[in-house]
Amino acid sequence: MATSVPHLSTTSFDEWLDQLDAFLFDCDGVLWRGDAAITGAKEAIALLRSRGKKVVFVTNNSTKARDTYVKKLVGQGIPASVEDIVTSASACAAYLKKTNVQGKVYVVGEAGLATEVSAQGFENFGLEDNGKTTLPHPFVVDPTVGAVVIGLDRAISYYKLSYAAVCILQNPGCKFYATNNDPTYPTDGAILPGGGSCVAALATAVGREPDAIVGKPNQALLQTILTTHGLNPTRTCMVGDRLSTDIEFGRRGGLRTLLVMSGTTSSDDVAKITDDHQRPDFFAEDINVLNALAQK
Amino acid sequence: MATSVPHLSTTSFDEWLDQLDAFLFDCDGVLWRGDAAITGAKEAIALLRSRGKKVVFVTNNSTKARDTYVKKLVGQGIPASVEDIVTSASACAAYLKKTNVQGKVYVVGEAGLATEVSAQGFENFGLEDNGKTTLPHPFVVDPTVGAVVIGLDRAISYYKLSYAAVCILQNPGCKFYATNNDPTYPTDGAILPGGGSCVAALATAVGREPDAIVGKPNQALLQTILTTHGLNPTRTCMVGDRLSTDIEFGRRGGLRTLLVMSGTTSSDDVAKITDDHQRPDFFAEDINVLNALAQK
Repeated sequence: MATSVPHLSTTSFDEWLDQLDAFLFDCDGVLWRGDAAITGAKEAIALLRSRGKKVVFVTNNSTKARDTYVKKLVGQGIPASVEDIVTSASACAAYLKKTNVQGKVYVVGEAGLATEVSAQGFENFGLEDNGKTTLPHPFVVDPTVGAVVIGLDRAISYYKLSYAAVCILQNPGCKFYATNNDPTYPTDGAILPGGGSCVAALATAVGREPDAIVGKPNQALLQTILTTHGLNPTRTCMVGDRLSTDIEFGRRGGLRTLLVMSGTTSSDDVAKITDDHQRPDFFAEDINVLNALAQK
Repeated sequence: MATSVPHLSTTSFDEWLDQLDAFLFDCDGVLWRGDAAITGAKEAIALLRSRGKKVVFVTNNSTKARDTYVKKLVGQGIPASVEDIVTSASACAAYLKKTNVQGKVYVVGEAGLATEVSAQGFENFGLEDNGKTTLPHPFVVDPTVGAVVIGLDRAISYYKLSYAAVCILQNPGCKFYATNNDPTYPTDGAILPGGGSCVAALATAVGREPDAIVGKPNQALLQTILTTHGLNPTRTCMVGDRLSTDIEFGRRGGLRTLLVMSGTTSSDDVAKITDDHQRPDFFAEDINVLNALAQK
């Protein structure tokens, strides 16, 4: 580990906690990998809540709707309600509304993204195109599509990628929103392509970057979370496993930050940090370190 | 059209032809779009051959093996043999051999790429993974994979993308070769995502660019073609529809260049050229202009 980032144990745990009212928690790679819980996750969340800390879950995972996330958290022994959760899918759906998108929405993503887009009142389609292997000639798309939204899509197909590209290329008014830009995400046993991989495929095809990448480290998202929950940024700590999303999200917003090494970031990555916005205040091997330090 | 690039008709057609011994022809967007022939294509090729010019077909399309390309050319009324054709798939397969890749090859591409890789004696797989929707946990890959090759894959799936990414991420010796980097390709009725779109998805997931992009504008490929056919670069003309592949391929190698506007390049694109390597000597609306100028 780079000496430039201190281990959490090098500070007084109680003094550190006293400076904080709230924690924003990333989930994949912090609380679990795939469906496998990370040891001590539920105990650490319970510990923070018992000390009166507000806990909000902020994930760039766009594949699940918030109510599905509640079930996952509860299934892992972490009580939660929909209000405690922000996903890049719910944030993207809110952004469609905030920017007054007109027309239908084409979704290159999973059921959770479509559910959140529907919940904001947008007619949308795309999931029905899973598994389509025949390309129409000519490739005609619905001209009333006003936005393409894209996130991690483990059912992505060339058909869906093409449909989205043609919508954007043929209609100059069509918005191109990405839920998040994570290049990978950690599962149980492997690092797999993330939402950013799908976004890169579409951005390359249309020759431009998305009009917005709504998830972490987007600062508009952070401001919405702080306002919604009435949080003081300097008394809020972002806990995450990725420098370019979680830590940058927190640092740019003036939050405290804690990097856990249980997800996508290696010691080598930390040693190579050149952007101060990606330098965490502290690191810990995993969230279980909080439990160990509390018992000292 | 930008005034900085002259129309072919502004030069003497016979003088221009007299300065040339050979033509390298791109195919998609030059001879056809999808399966639809571009008017005058077969007549223009016949015209050049009748004037004693050598014609070689150089395509970044990796989806078809060369013998399938022969059938497509012949089907369009253009006589050709395998020796007249270089595809980014055949070039990529040759590059595997040239760089002494050991072990198996994982193919994210279509049948033509796998055929060419097999023809060079490499055990390969990947096509069998088309349509797989279940991701194994943990995601274990064959440790003997020595290279991943990727090109346009209209059956691309998250499973294949993941398999390729895990091969590259888990085995530091695994090569990452791309057939080509074309962001799009022209079909009959729409511009659709090209090989570069697939490459971008994988490059993002593994956090690095390919070790080699074998197709146009790769200059090693051009040197191989010039040597194989005994061509003098200054007496050879590259005809293509894309500035960043065809025209750059020719210009960097000292060839003459002709841009046709029947594929992916618009007048706006030409007006925005800032890289002299992408500035063609001449442009024409399409290849049929050759026939018209010959009859003047």
